[in-house]
Amino acid sequence: MSITFVEGGHAASPVGWGAATAQCGIKYQGRDDLALLVSAGPCSAAAIFTTNKVKAAPVRYDMELMRRSPASLRALVINAGNANACTGPAGDAAVLAMAQAVATALALPVDTVFVMSTGTIGVPMPVAKVLGGIAAAATALAPSHGPAAARAIMTTDTRPKYCAARVDLPSGHTITIGGMTKGAGMIHPNMATLLATVTSDAAVSPVCLDAALRAAANLSFNSISIDGDTSTNDTLLVMANATVGNPPIDDLASPDGQAFLEGLTAVCQHLAKAVVRDGEGATRFVTITVRGAASDADAKLAAMTIAKSPLVKTALYGADPNWGRVLCALGYSGAAIDPDKVLLSFGGMRVLAGGMPLPFDEQVASDMLNVPEVSIDADLGMGDGIATVWTCDFSENYVKINAEYRT
Amino acid sequence: MSITFVEGGHAASPVGWGAATAQCGIKYQGRDDLALLVSAGPCSAAAIFTTNKVKAAPVRYDMELMRRSPASLRALVINAGNANACTGPAGDAAVLAMAQAVATALALPVDTVFVMSTGTIGVPMPVAKVLGGIAAAATALAPSHGPAAARAIMTTDTRPKYCAARVDLPSGHTITIGGMTKGAGMIHPNMATLLATVTSDAAVSPVCLDAALRAAANLSFNSISIDGDTSTNDTLLVMANATVGNPPIDDLASPDGQAFLEGLTAVCQHLAKAVVRDGEGATRFVTITVRGAASDADAKLAAMTIAKSPLVKTALYGADPNWGRVLCALGYSGAAIDPDKVLLSFGGMRVLAGGMPLPFDEQVASDMLNVPEVSIDADLGMGDGIATVWTCDFSENYVKINAEYRT
Repeated sequence: MSITFVEGGHAASPVGWGAATAQCGIKYQGRDDLALLVSAGPCSAAAIFTTNKVKAAPVRYDMELMRRSPASLRALVINAGNANACTGPAGDAAVLAMAQAVATALALPVDTVFVMSTGTIGVPMPVAKVLGGIAAAATALAPSHGPAAARAIMTTDTRPKYCAARVDLPSGHTITIGGMTKGAGMIHPNMATLLATVTSDAAVSPVCLDAALRAAANLSFNSISIDGDTSTNDTLLVMANATVGNPPIDDLASPDGQAFLEGLTAVCQHLAKAVVRDGEGATRFVTITVRGAASDADAKLAAMTIAKSPLVKTALYGADPNWGRVLCALGYSGAAIDPDKVLLSFGGMRVLAGGMPLPFDEQVASDMLNVPEVSIDADLGMGDGIATVWTCDFSENYVKINAEYRT
Repeated sequence: MSITFVEGGHAASPVGWGAATAQCGIKYQGRDDLALLVSAGPCSAAAIFTTNKVKAAPVRYDMELMRRSPASLRALVINAGNANACTGPAGDAAVLAMAQAVATALALPVDTVFVMSTGTIGVPMPVAKVLGGIAAAATALAPSHGPAAARAIMTTDTRPKYCAARVDLPSGHTITIGGMTKGAGMIHPNMATLLATVTSDAAVSPVCLDAALRAAANLSFNSISIDGDTSTNDTLLVMANATVGNPPIDDLASPDGQAFLEGLTAVCQHLAKAVVRDGEGATRFVTITVRGAASDADAKLAAMTIAKSPLVKTALYGADPNWGRVLCALGYSGAAIDPDKVLLSFGGMRVLAGGMPLPFDEQVASDMLNVPEVSIDADLGMGDGIATVWTCDFSENYVKINAEYRT
């Protein structure tokens, strides 16, 4: 089983996919703010939505859509600049109008169209502008517009995030899995202000696709944290259009199923890490691995607690090998720990064992942390549980960006 | 039942209390870094300790002490500059040496001495310096040194925090409740890097004192949040020496019991709010009230989730009436909510109702938030649950302080 990332690959890289963008002027001026992704044939689809009880209109629409017809998506439309959240009945009408406009322009049934929105919440959607953009985009679909689509959905992101990987299935076919994502602030497990779309040309049953997406999300988008907040619009969608002709994957435990899952996980991890790297004000990309936990769930709980601690994150910003704050976070994480059994390393350098700090050169350790990619490793000595999560540091610039974002 | 705060009152204001300080040079130079609080007679006592699984040596010592002899404390010693956490067996020996030094100097049984430490963790306690300080302080006890004691226990605090209140008991006596606290960073429910001591001259049974402390803490120290982290050393202690001669309070539901509880709560709230006002880098003191929740527990969960959200706290720093972030926090708090029923106000100005923002003047709202004391009020419309919590904003300076604290 082999996975190869495609250089410059994107959400429209898989066979039978096209992308297009348009400039609607929803909030941003002088840039595209609408993206269309369209498949040449019907897609199996699965989605994961925000767990926030406050859900944007498109999220409520898509949840209902997935309940009705999970196996027949054809198109996805995404706008940036307006989240269409807290917009009342007019917001619901706006989603439906967007879906209908896509359906009309592409001669598709309306319930094959998925809608995502991101941006400011509580502002009425400028529907006429968006519908004009949809009509324009629908005439400009091409596979080569995949990167532009990733650019059109950006909000506070500083760069577009997309990739594609080829997976050689054991049964003989080579499939492609592509994707794009946006999201910089409010990133946290369970899909916080994060839109992500994964596309494929493989044939995968809806049930199998759903199981694969949940497993892949657990190891990617649900293993990252920027600031611990979750939002109203977060959505992760996967669509597979069966264009490449592989024998349909309907058992995730089969060799083809395992290969697909591995490819999907790799693409989701690539996108999720790109989100962390572009975290608001982030200066460091941090990989946190907890092993030796009583269970995998405990390991993840411990790792995420470290990842969310403002004191750990500010220490990382200051390149301070502050093992005490990491140990504290482990202590209040709720995971089973015995402080005397914890081993702790920064960037591979052991700093704590047996409940006490080891002698280490503070300056060497600080220099080692004063780089763009750092790691924290904890071994709890309680069992075999392991988890890896990714986060970024907390900088003065994060505060600045978020104090000034809306006003 | 009447409570009057005493102007300039402090932890040694109640009858039969003395305080003293010393300059040990543990970490800070040119200032006192050790405080003694001593009662003329034996005290009922109760304490609440950090829930962090990583506990400093003094916390482990005191927990054991309170299990052994909860009704016979006489003295408290506190040092600043070294937390005596993650210090191994030498740390345990240091606590015992500190307690023994106090006991010897004051001719008291060792198990009447309570020990607290705050400061850097993982650094061996300079025992000789501390014992020298204890010996010096023991010769200088006086009620008037209460404010100096509050100053001696400061770490990143910018000002000492102390108060005292007189309570007229329905049975006729007037008792005094005093207190002092320290703690600026890492403040969160369950006593995060926070040391607080409450003293009284009332007669209260240990069981009753314990119940009163838990109730008062729930409405004060466990209703504040600075950054959501909890620490290794947090301790809240109350000692009552029965010097004033009131009929012993052994029923919290009695009129005297209720009056004592109200006074204790008022003193604890005063101290807890002082901690928030001195939050690291804080520029605003924020009162968050959630009412109409399905239960008081739900109201507190919702209020604390708002209080902990970095996005809410950075918006407050920027004087941004960002109701969306507050609504989001309610949505992921876990409390039962229906977004369409939520009413939201900033500083008394209604900004959201029926799931949608109300028209308001952004500039007026922003000006209203650009003050030292602001309030957020949410009515969930689900029931009768209510809770108030206090927090501060998240400033660029918070990041700066915490990126630079240790190194």
